[in-house]
Order: sequence, then structure tokens, then C-alpha cells
Amino acid sequence: MARRARTRRDVDAGWAPDLASPHVERRLPFFDPINDDGIERLEAQVDWIMQDLGLEFRDDPEALRIWTEAGAKVDGTRVRAPADWIRALCAKAPREFTQVARNPARNVRIGGNHQVFAPIYGAPFVRDLASGRRYGDMESFEKLVKLAYMHPNLHHTGLVICEPCDVPVSHRHLDMVYTHMTRSDKPHLGAITEQSRAQDSVDMAEILHGADFMQENCVIMGNVNTNSPLLVDKVVTQAIQTYCGRGQGIIVVPFILSGAMGPVSTAASVTQAMAEAMMCCAFSQLIRPGAPFVLGNFLSSMSLKSGAPTFGMPEPVLSNYAIGQMARRVGLPLRCGGSLTASKVEDAQAAYESADSMHSTMLAGANFVLHAAGWLEGGLCTGFEKLVMDADRLGSYQKVLAGLDISDEGLARDAYTEVEPAGHFLGCAHTMRNYQTAFYEPALSDSENVESWEDGGSQDMRMRAHARWTGMLAHYEQPDLDEAKDEELRDYIARRKTEIPEAWY
Amino acid sequence: MARRARTRRDVDAGWAPDLASPHVERRLPFFDPINDDGIERLEAQVDWIMQDLGLEFRDDPEALRIWTEAGAKVDGTRVRAPADWIRALCAKAPREFTQVARNPARNVRIGGNHQVFAPIYGAPFVRDLASGRRYGDMESFEKLVKLAYMHPNLHHTGLVICEPCDVPVSHRHLDMVYTHMTRSDKPHLGAITEQSRAQDSVDMAEILHGADFMQENCVIMGNVNTNSPLLVDKVVTQAIQTYCGRGQGIIVVPFILSGAMGPVSTAASVTQAMAEAMMCCAFSQLIRPGAPFVLGNFLSSMSLKSGAPTFGMPEPVLSNYAIGQMARRVGLPLRCGGSLTASKVEDAQAAYESADSMHSTMLAGANFVLHAAGWLEGGLCTGFEKLVMDADRLGSYQKVLAGLDISDEGLARDAYTEVEPAGHFLGCAHTMRNYQTAFYEPALSDSENVESWEDGGSQDMRMRAHARWTGMLAHYEQPDLDEAKDEELRDYIARRKTEIPEAWY
Repeated sequence: MARRARTRRDVDAGWAPDLASPHVERRLPFFDPINDDGIERLEAQVDWIMQDLGLEFRDDPEALRIWTEAGAKVDGTRVRAPADWIRALCAKAPREFTQVARNPARNVRIGGNHQVFAPIYGAPFVRDLASGRRYGDMESFEKLVKLAYMHPNLHHTGLVICEPCDVPVSHRHLDMVYTHMTRSDKPHLGAITEQSRAQDSVDMAEILHGADFMQENCVIMGNVNTNSPLLVDKVVTQAIQTYCGRGQGIIVVPFILSGAMGPVSTAASVTQAMAEAMMCCAFSQLIRPGAPFVLGNFLSSMSLKSGAPTFGMPEPVLSNYAIGQMARRVGLPLRCGGSLTASKVEDAQAAYESADSMHSTMLAGANFVLHAAGWLEGGLCTGFEKLVMDADRLGSYQKVLAGLDISDEGLARDAYTEVEPAGHFLGCAHTMRNYQTAFYEPALSDSENVESWEDGGSQDMRMRAHARWTGMLAHYEQPDLDEAKDEELRDYIARRKTEIPEAWY
Repeated sequence: MARRARTRRDVDAGWAPDLASPHVERRLPFFDPINDDGIERLEAQVDWIMQDLGLEFRDDPEALRIWTEAGAKVDGTRVRAPADWIRALCAKAPREFTQVARNPARNVRIGGNHQVFAPIYGAPFVRDLASGRRYGDMESFEKLVKLAYMHPNLHHTGLVICEPCDVPVSHRHLDMVYTHMTRSDKPHLGAITEQSRAQDSVDMAEILHGADFMQENCVIMGNVNTNSPLLVDKVVTQAIQTYCGRGQGIIVVPFILSGAMGPVSTAASVTQAMAEAMMCCAFSQLIRPGAPFVLGNFLSSMSLKSGAPTFGMPEPVLSNYAIGQMARRVGLPLRCGGSLTASKVEDAQAAYESADSMHSTMLAGANFVLHAAGWLEGGLCTGFEKLVMDADRLGSYQKVLAGLDISDEGLARDAYTEVEPAGHFLGCAHTMRNYQTAFYEPALSDSENVESWEDGGSQDMRMRAHARWTGMLAHYEQPDLDEAKDEELRDYIARRKTEIPEAWY
């Protein structure tokens, strides 16, 4: 497939995928607000949970066999283990690793000083300004994948950018993975909901990347939740076995709504999340030492009025900071946070909550940020406008992560010798040398005066976002893919769809 | 005036002023992202600006006389001084101080670990959902002061919450100061635009607090901008002489639009702001050693398309972090940041930008935050809805600033011994003991499900904010004030209005 040359106009509009940074390498230090005593108190509780309370591993006798054989204390389905041993197993996982994309320019580095932004995952509904709120379908799914591919501030396309509810549940993973593999050349995730679906995802990755290459490289990852509190079911253990067994990556994420799946205390919920994730990491390293593992955390606060989960609130902000510090001490890449909100629409609530959630996610040093764009309604709905609005702000965070330039050019002494007091710097040599890169140029913020803005139709950010994503899609071009591989993928999917009965649950 | 007992309903609605915290005492550490080498590079440039470049002090021969007499190097209107000497003078200003309110329960502590939130300052326009955008007037001014008084998350009412454009400019300061003194009992600022207006403000404070008390206590402050780059005019030096000469506080704020009033570099603009503010602080300490001084900073980035100032962007976020570190090293209370935006309305742009601006303001440790609520349109417009929307988020920041509770109760071990794996914590003893204070309860975020939200009329945050501020005003009660003092204030104003000709410029 011939690729049309990028025009200046695409670049000006900021949506040419070639502009994408593969990921963000931060120079800004992490924000580590907890002192050593505090961290040691938290870690002591993590150890107590792993050693004394233990976790339940249910519905997967193979997982219990593996734990028993490795020397853990297994009582029925309860697994306890010395904290030192769990920590030693966690130390076998890489501190950072590369997820290889089919276009090597899009490889992402996960861990250390690197931050990777991926869109919302798992919403059954979608919403946009023209068509309102509705169930997700394959048409929306494909559009959203294209947008995540095109947006320069998203480095990874995730997987379930919305649920394509018009495809049978039992076949859905095949179409989703294929869409990511063909409509984008950025890295993505595979399915986890059932072992055979995880298997299909890894098999399809093998078609794209080759079995030998996958022995040495992470090309796909699964993202899976524990059943907090302190329960790990077979969805988790089988996903770990499937992905890590083939040398691929796994992200394990305790989802804790404080007061329900954890105590009504942020500190306690953080220790619980660490214990759950670290036990799963240890398990992954029993499956294959050195398998890429991302320590996940998803902590939500609660409305006292209704018990509904709330987002962008101070408790998860504090939990982001805490989990960042703890993940770095145990030496594991971290997933946490995102542009989260409980708002139903792309209003100020959505933006306040998303920004506070994301600002803390960024300072905490999350290495892989799922839900970095597009999230509405506590994760039940993917917003087309929200996707590009959040992603626009991700560009600002990327610049923050680059830190302050205090080089000689940054200090600009020559500007002060050129410009007199009470003068202005608009035309001075330093300004002329630097103005083009001095400021982040957002696509969706309007900074004009009120008269210009009114002349332009008094458009709020939602309206501008609608114009932007529809404009992006009009410029979409599918990235090249080897025809033989594409055919092999399509044959695989066709065969599997005949083997797997259609099921809607 | 009899004060009606607060009802349970006021408290539930969260607007009873008695709920106000006098200010925030943070336990969360500051975010100090610049290493020692970097800070020393920045400080060396601050010193170079003060020593070698110097500042222009224009239109105030008295200021030049004071500098000359104290030993500075004065060439015409250019003042240079050894950096060590300027730093020694800055060290005479208090690291923290109390601004006393007429109701002592509302005293605020400024500096150190304390953070004080005040509303927008200086907007000529106002906007609300019912009446749209219009010039500010005394009616709006009074309503806004009442709202700032009533809101529990605002600790200080500032001064020019909007410009009351229906009052002659030459009389305006009298009515503004009187409104703050009578409609609220929180601390506030005085006028600075002309020396006689600063004088009137301090004289009115003297009526309220007494001359002797003011010798020992800060009861009013002025907030004034330098004329960046490197120019200090008589508005600044006379305001310092008037406020500090009477033992009152002064906030001096270089306003730098990078690329215009400073180099197109954040680091350089920060050093310039420090140099300008420190020279003014030194001057304040020549006027009266120990006078309360707040080092201000207001740095904005610029749109390359139009040259318009932009807000909530990564450059001012980074400048907040930097100035926080530098202000603490020089030992001065800091004003920076706020809930800033270039948006014309209370949309997602306004909220994203305000949140990123305010999140960094908070982590940077700003001790006095003007513009913490109500700012729209780059400061040209005060939004009634925006005021209560921002203030709602200030409650969340206050909880973040309290830091993570890692006490025994915070670690909640008894909850884990009570609740089995896969159980839930909703009814456990730890939850019952803590649930009422566990989570910040925002007034304006809706976390209900989409069906409930639609049943309630699909109100976005702006609509809820409109209902909130109109509801608050309906419950307003004027705080008690001694009748004799009120009469003395009114007499003072009446006399001054006959002495000062009406002028509209």
C-alpha cells in the first residue's frame, strides 16, 4: 500500500502519526512525599499481608501446584509466603523492558524514567456530540483505534477502547486484536477474559512477529484485575501463564474501591494493592523468570451519598504518589491512574477530575498509563471528544516531564544584555532562536480574546474536539502491512470463528 | 445584629461560613524537582541580575533616596546592589506571619507550611449562566464578596473580586474596602493603584483594628505588580512605603509573559521574577525591617498563533515548581499560581487548565494563592459559576495537602483480621469508625449513574454551580460588626468622597 507523503497541513494540524513520540522519557524527578519511616511502615504491612494473611488462589489447581512446588505455604486455596522470598522473585522481573511494535519506530519502553500513554479500556458505551450515548460497536471501535493510532500523544492503543457489542462475546477478542494489528502500527494489548482468548491473542501476535522473535521480545501484553480483597482467580493465573509462558508481558491490577474491596483508608488499600500485585508478580516469575511484569494499581474513592465510585478525588491522588514510591522501591514498572472522572459528559467536572488524576499519575511516575484518554462515566463510556481532549493535555504533561531547561540557552543571558529594562523581548535574538519550541501549542485550548472567540461561533472545547476527531478520521490512512501476514491473520480468525460457538456472554 | 443559629441544613449544604478552615496547614512535603546544581545556576543568575544589570526605579525620587542612603549603587534611576546584601535584607522579612482578620477565628497564617486561598483579583467583567457576560458593577462585587465569605474553602477575600465599574475609579477603592470589611469577616487586601488609595485602605483598617494593634499586627496587605522587565515604578515603591511603613504586609508580583516581558524561556523568566521581587523585598525591609513581605510570581506562556497569553500550560507549571523551591531557599512566603485559564466559559478547557495550574501551585507550596477561584478569560472575567466550581476543587487540594494517614488507624489491620479474602469491608468495624471522614465529599461533582443523572435533568457542572451560588446567596447573613466602627467607616468614606473629585480613569 502506497503511503501518501505527509503534507504540511497534516503536520500543522498535529495529527500526522509520524509526529508521535514513541514514549516519554522524563527528566523531571518523581514526587516522593512519604518519608523512609512511613514507607517502612507501609512495607511492613505489605509483608504481613503476604506472609500472615496470604492470598486466596481459586479455580486453578495448576496455580496451586506451582506455588506448592516452589515452596510456598499452601493451605487449601490460601497461599502464604515469606516476604523476602516474594521480594526476591519480584526482583527477577525486569525493571524496564521494551514492548516491540510491528513498526519499530513505535516501540515503547516501559519502566524506569519512561511513561507510555494508552487510551481507555473496557467501556461498554460510547458517546459523541453528534450521536449521543449508545452501546459501543465495531464501527465505533475501529474509529477509536484509528484515532489512538493517529494521535501523536498516545503511544499505545490498549485493547478494549470500547466494547464492540455487536460482535458475539466469544468472537470479540479476535476482531479487536485484528483491528489493532491492522488499523494501527502502535503496540497494543491482548485479551485475558478466558485462557483461550489470551492464547488466540498471543497466537495472532506470533503470526505478526514470529515465534523465535517472541522468545526474546515482548510484543504483546495482557492487562488483568485481581479480585480484591486478596483473591486471585483463574482469569489472572491463566493469563499470567499464557502471556508470561510465552515470554510476553502481563499487567496485574488490583482494583480497590476503598471501603468495599479494601478498608476505607487510602494507606491500607495501597498496602493491599501492593501485596496482591507482588504475589502475582512472584507467580509470574515462577512461570518464567525475567518475564515482563507491570505492577498495577487502581484505587477509587466513594460517594458517601450513594456508594458510587468517585474519581479525581484527593484519596486516589495520594494513592498515586504512594504507589509510585513503593513500586520504585520494589523495582517494578508501574501502571496507575489515568484521566479518570465520574462525569457523564465532557464538562468542567470531567476535566477537573481528569486533570487532577492525571497530574498525580504523571508526578508519581506511572510507566504505563491505561485510561490516559477517553474515559467518562467511571469507565462505562468512551467519549470521542473526551479522547482527543485528554490527549491534547497529554502533550502538556509530556513537556512538564521534560523538566526545566537550565542550560545556558535556557538562562538566556544574552537576551538581558540585548533588552533594556522596561523593554520587550519579542524581537530579540534569543527569542528568534527559541520561540518556535518555547511553548507547548495545544490544539484544543482557545486563548483568543472574547470577541474573536464569539466571532468564531462561541465554540466550547467539546465542539472544537468534535471538529478535531472528525477531521482526523477524514485524514486517516491505514499503515502498511505485509499482505501475506494480513491473509494469515484473517485465515486464523476465520478458522477460530468456526471452532468457537457464538456466545453473547 | 443577632446571628441565627446555623441549621443542620446549612452544614449539609457545605456553605455555612463557620465550617471554614482558617487556612491549610500542609503535611504533604513540597515538590522540589530541581537539584542543587540547578538551583545554584538559577541563583547565580538572580544575583547577576541584581548586581550587574540592576533594576530601574522610576518616578519616585524618595525611593532612590532610600536606596542611595542605604548604600546601593544608584546610577540615575538604575539601582544595583551586592546580592549578599539584598539577601541579607530579605532575611529580615518574616518567614511566616499572621494576617489578623476582624474575626480572630478567620486569621490566616502566611508562609511555611501554610496555604491560604483567595479569589480572583482585577477582572473588569463578570459572567454567570443567567445574565451572561457584562461589565462588573457594585451589585456583582457585593455578591461575589459574600460568596467568598461564605465558601468554606476560601480563607481570604482578596480585594478586586471584580471591578465595580459603576463606581468612579477615584472612589472605587473606598467602596470595595468597605464591602470586604462589612460583608465578610475574613481577611482581605487593600488598594494600591495610587498612594492615596493605599493610604485610605490602611486608614480604614485602622478604624477597624486600632492604630496600636496595627503597630504589632498585620491586618491588611497590598498586592502590586512590578513593570517587568526590571522596572519598578512609583505604584510599587509607594505601596511598599504605605503598607510596610505602617507595619502592614505587601505582596510584590512580577507579571511576566515569557517572550514579551521576559525571555522566551521559563528558567530565565523565573530568575528575573526572583530578582525583581527580591529587590522589592529588600526595599520593603529598608522601609521597616520585619515588615511582612510575600514574594509573588505570575508567569504566563504565549500562543504562537496570536501572542495571546495562555494558562495552565506546562511552562507555568514548571515555573511554579521552580519558584517554590527558590522562595523557600530565600526564606520568603510565596504567592504564585491559581486556578488560571484562557477559556471564555466554564467548559472543560477552563477546568483542565485551572486544575493543572492549581495542582502545581499546591505542590509548589504557594503560601498565598490569589486567583484560586473564579478566574476566566485570562483574568478579564470573574465567573460566578467558576468561583464555586474552583472552590469546590480547593477542598480536594486541602485533603491532598493533609497527606497520607499512615497511623495505625490508617493501616487498618483490624479490618483485615475481620474481613476474609473475597469479602467486603462495607460493614466492618474499621469502616464504621472512619467512613464519615474517609473521603472528600465534593459539592459539585456528580458521581451518580447515567440514569439518575438524566432523571435529574442531565445537569452539567455549570448548571449545578449556578444552583449552588444562588442558593448560597439566599442563605447569606451579614457577620456582626460593632455599630460605632461601622459608622466611623461610613463617615470616613463620605468625607473622602467629598475630598476626592469623581474621576473615571
